[in-house]
Amino acid sequence: MMRSEARRAQARTSEMFARAGIVLSAEEQSQIEVAGFGLGNLEEQGLELITYVNTDRYCAKELVLFPRQTCPEHLHPSVHGEPGKMETFRCRWGCVYLYVEGEKTTEIQAIVPAGSESCYTVFHEIVLHPGEQHTIPPGTKHWFQGGPEGAIVSEFSSTSRDEFDIFTDPKIARMPVIVEDEEH
Amino acid sequence: MMRSEARRAQARTSEMFARAGIVLSAEEQSQIEVAGFGLGNLEEQGLELITYVNTDRYCAKELVLFPRQTCPEHLHPSVHGEPGKMETFRCRWGCVYLYVEGEKTTEIQAIVPAGSESCYTVFHEIVLHPGEQHTIPPGTKHWFQGGPEGAIVSEFSSTSRDEFDIFTDPKIARMPVIVEDEEH
Repeated sequence: MMRSEARRAQARTSEMFARAGIVLSAEEQSQIEVAGFGLGNLEEQGLELITYVNTDRYCAKELVLFPRQTCPEHLHPSVHGEPGKMETFRCRWGCVYLYVEGEKTTEIQAIVPAGSESCYTVFHEIVLHPGEQHTIPPGTKHWFQGGPEGAIVSEFSSTSRDEFDIFTDPKIARMPVIVEDEEH
Repeated sequence: MMRSEARRAQARTSEMFARAGIVLSAEEQSQIEVAGFGLGNLEEQGLELITYVNTDRYCAKELVLFPRQTCPEHLHPSVHGEPGKMETFRCRWGCVYLYVEGEKTTEIQAIVPAGSESCYTVFHEIVLHPGEQHTIPPGTKHWFQGGPEGAIVSEFSSTSRDEFDIFTDPKIARMPVIVEDEEH
């Protein structure tokens, strides 16, 4: 990802937080993570987030999805004998379409990213509006997409170890860094 | 606490959430906890809260303090061999004065509840405005008070077991129920 693209995404994320009345410190503003997952189309498949706290006991983040932006399908495996990450998504603003393992929803509201259809395999739909939440058990495949206006989602969870996440798309090898050099 | 007093506090809490742009479901609105700690003066010593999620791995709550309302000094002890609750307070709206163990702050901004002075013993002051947060280690005495306009504080933590909390004030024997009968 170009540094300029990441900076634009950070600024857009800050605007969405401001619109939703969610206040970040100046330091946090500069630490907003922009995850393109190495797929080259951030606005289609990507995620913006700030980690408030991540201890060996719990974690809290604020996730931002631009309109129709998709966080690709993945799961949180057991790590060092501990159960995988368990997480609760609480919609704060906008609307998020969440897909988990279970009975397939007949007509889903999300648009599966074109060209990546084979990397999306679970289609049990849960739609979250502000004030609604859903808890995802460890080891469960899931993916999610922002609605027409995007979404802000609080994530409450056990300890976060993103580097162990297993993505369905084999092109996603690792969580990308926040901002890469312009020449990359 | 009279049922009518608890209902009024719930309504006031709902108004503060609305003013801060924090959305609760209708079910959550009806489940707002009003904790008077059995001290008989809710507006002076009390706390309003909603628990979003409390699993055996993590917990997330939204705490509300009315102007100058104080959550009395307490600590979270080890339970069943596990370390006590660790918690991160993140101010979302208003201002909160937090006191923890450590060097005493010379002139604190909170007003210690009159008549309960002996039940407040730690005075290391941390002032949190929106976007600011502080993590309280297990087993650490702490108390906190809403600023002149009150406060809304997100609490991210390990599993919450309120019934084991140890309060400095011996008159506080247990966490009170949400709403007691009118005749109590």
